[in-house]
Amino acid sequence: MRIAVINEFSACAKNGDILAALEAAVPGAQIMNVGMSDPAQEPALVYIHTGLITGILLGAGWCDFAVGGCGTGQGYLISAMQYPGVFCGLVLDPLDAWLFSQINGGNCVSLALNKGYGWAGDINLRYLFDKLFCDPAGRGYPLARAESQAQSRATLQAISMQTHRPLAEILTDIPDEIWVPILQHKPFMDIVAQHAESNIARLIMQKGD
Amino acid sequence: MRIAVINEFSACAKNGDILAALEAAVPGAQIMNVGMSDPAQEPALVYIHTGLITGILLGAGWCDFAVGGCGTGQGYLISAMQYPGVFCGLVLDPLDAWLFSQINGGNCVSLALNKGYGWAGDINLRYLFDKLFCDPAGRGYPLARAESQAQSRATLQAISMQTHRPLAEILTDIPDEIWVPILQHKPFMDIVAQHAESNIARLIMQKGD
Amino acid sequence: MRIAVINEFSACAKNGDILAALEAAVPGAQIMNVGMSDPAQEPALVYIHTGLITGILLGAGWCDFAVGGCGTGQGYLISAMQYPGVFCGLVLDPLDAWLFSQINGGNCVSLALNKGYGWAGDINLRYLFDKLFCDPAGRGYPLARAESQAQSRATLQAISMQTHRPLAEILTDIPDEIWVPILQHKPFMDIVAQHAESNIARLIMQKGD
Amino acid sequence: MRIAVINEFSACAKNGDILAALEAAVPGAQIMNVGMSDPAQEPALVYIHTGLITGILLGAGWCDFAVGGCGTGQGYLISAMQYPGVFCGLVLDPLDAWLFSQINGGNCVSLALNKGYGWAGDINLRYLFDKLFCDPAGRGYPLARAESQAQSRATLQAISMQTHRPLAEILTDIPDEIWVPILQHKPFMDIVAQHAESNIARLIMQKGD
Repeated sequence: MRIAVINEFSACAKNGDILAALEAAVPGAQIMNVGMSDPAQEPALVYIHTGLITGILLGAGWCDFAVGGCGTGQGYLISAMQYPGVFCGLVLDPLDAWLFSQINGGNCVSLALNKGYGWAGDINLRYLFDKLFCDPAGRGYPLARAESQAQSRATLQAISMQTHRPLAEILTDIPDEIWVPILQHKPFMDIVAQHAESNIARLIMQKGD
Repeated sequence: MRIAVINEFSACAKNGDILAALEAAVPGAQIMNVGMSDPAQEPALVYIHTGLITGILLGAGWCDFAVGGCGTGQGYLISAMQYPGVFCGLVLDPLDAWLFSQINGGNCVSLALNKGYGWAGDINLRYLFDKLFCDPAGRGYPLARAESQAQSRATLQAISMQTHRPLAEILTDIPDEIWVPILQHKPFMDIVAQHAESNIARLIMQKGD
Repeated sequence: MRIAVINEFSACAKNGDILAALEAAVPGAQIMNVGMSDPAQEPALVYIHTGLITGILLGAGWCDFAVGGCGTGQGYLISAMQYPGVFCGLVLDPLDAWLFSQINGGNCVSLALNKGYGWAGDINLRYLFDKLFCDPAGRGYPLARAESQAQSRATLQAISMQTHRPLAEILTDIPDEIWVPILQHKPFMDIVAQHAESNIARLIMQKGD
Repeated sequence: MRIAVINEFSACAKNGDILAALEAAVPGAQIMNVGMSDPAQEPALVYIHTGLITGILLGAGWCDFAVGGCGTGQGYLISAMQYPGVFCGLVLDPLDAWLFSQINGGNCVSLALNKGYGWAGDINLRYLFDKLFCDPAGRGYPLARAESQAQSRATLQAISMQTHRPLAEILTDIPDEIWVPILQHKPFMDIVAQHAESNIARLIMQKGD
């Protein structure tokens, strides 16, 4: 599994905690550290940018799962959910994580990285990721609702494609001022470069011209 | 303020708690109870339906704020966020509620109505709504980030319109089997009837023909 | 390790959840189910009784660890803490559990069994016990404070003996009306009978005469 | 009401937050800031000391309510609960606070001041104190259990006197090394001096000779 970690400015001091917890919890995974990892990085990314990056990485199939967040987790979640095919939960503890994987089987989680993040916040992340990835996603909970939940997940996938415009169209219309910090953010642009032959990558690289 | 309460099947036993808490916390508001209020109601609505109803009510301007939820809150949130102009937070306690109103200034909240909902869950709802609506939304937190947060909210509004198709197009394409329980759900159809002259209402009423 | 589970009336419907979670989390342990397991049991025990039972079991050395609780967890905690040598934490999630074991190394936990106990509350118990018993107790957290914390634990042990009267004296003076339901509660009296030769057991059995 | 705030070393950076929240939430109260307010203060107090100070202040009747805490809240709680007549709850959010006041009607709360204390932790304290002190204590919850709960509180008061030695005896026997930092801690010794004529104060002042 390829897991993208996508931190914005306000909580990027926790980026190291997220990486360490993920590496320990999902040892076989390929972790891609795509967002900010240091508050001194310029230009700063806010959740507008990390949400868009999430939409691209998941929509283009360049990662399988995205882990983001912000001060409370709400802003990144709302931003990432603007894009087609993103199904993001706000998970605060191990039980949230497991229920989200079992009921919703989404491809993205948003973390609260300043609110409630104190002593042993890093250990809570470890526990949370353990439960997010320990069982096959989408088995349902409670089990009596498993079939209805599976149906809802499938319906949501279809609805997401009907309610959103295609990703390429979206990327074309996003205004230039939003692209500016993204096009200068090397960890993301390196991934774009790795997929240089794809339509989405070409579209992004044209923005920088 | 017109606040729509939109419960799905799995947690509609808490509908009375939500209504009572809202009425006490926001005495001047017009509360519209649009979803399920009794598990015996047929046909049952799941979060696919309550999310779509939310998208219609907010997108058509028939309410100012939507309160929904499900067992954990994640499913309704993901479903409601499929539609243009819906900005939904997952709020579990009064501090979540206040921070969401100050930082994100959204127009929708999703509640966890089975997970963590035990003794005095109704009182927690009251506390939560008190803080959701006590201060003018969007003042920012922490205040040093207020301007950046205001900019992000405005940008999100614009992005939501760029990433989604127009509501009328969406409603036209949503398949009939999703519409069936909605068209039979009187509390919602009564609201549609109140706006019978509008395009969105006409579009919905045609579905039932 | 001998772990006593001691439920009072208000939350004894969760007794089965606690047993199942403990058995799964601490497979080698001897689980002693000493309190109520069914709300129909007569006479009912309230936290006054389960706290006293806890004080006896831990004080007499008849168990190594006690797991109790009540609606919010506060009442059992306060009641159990009245007795010498009881060091009880209120643990609500896995991180609480692990930090309590590392920092406080106590011999008792109180659980909130109605407040916040909803969907998957049983699974949360499982996660919580996993972390309570996974690492050797008392290693300290953060590690820079380990020595100071170890010293505090040792000091607390000594203080508990100085501030309380000896257990045998306490048991002698507890008024009869508190003893009544305890002396009729078979799961506890069976344990007393197993230690019939000890002073504490003899003292309790005299109460029933 | 006279409310004592008693912080130990590990979390005394939050002392200002506690004072501000209490002053706003209980405007008529007399706030006594008895513990540490600055990590640079020497000698440092740990929860062994703040627990003993709590036992003295409540036991001698020099305050009506004590607010303490530590990194997770468990250590201070266990330490304060060693003394007769201390009934301490661990309260983490407004609902905890209100239920504790209604069900347990205790005279002491312990706060988690590092674990889970992040963005807006100060605001959470404000909300929490609002609900701790908004209603008359001990009315019971749920109301059907009010009488049983009132009886339990009265019984606990009596038990606390039976299980503990008298405060004056306890203070006499607490070893000198525990007294050392307390006797040098001016905010506490000022209060002792205000009650110089009482037995407890005289006993403490002799320790310093």
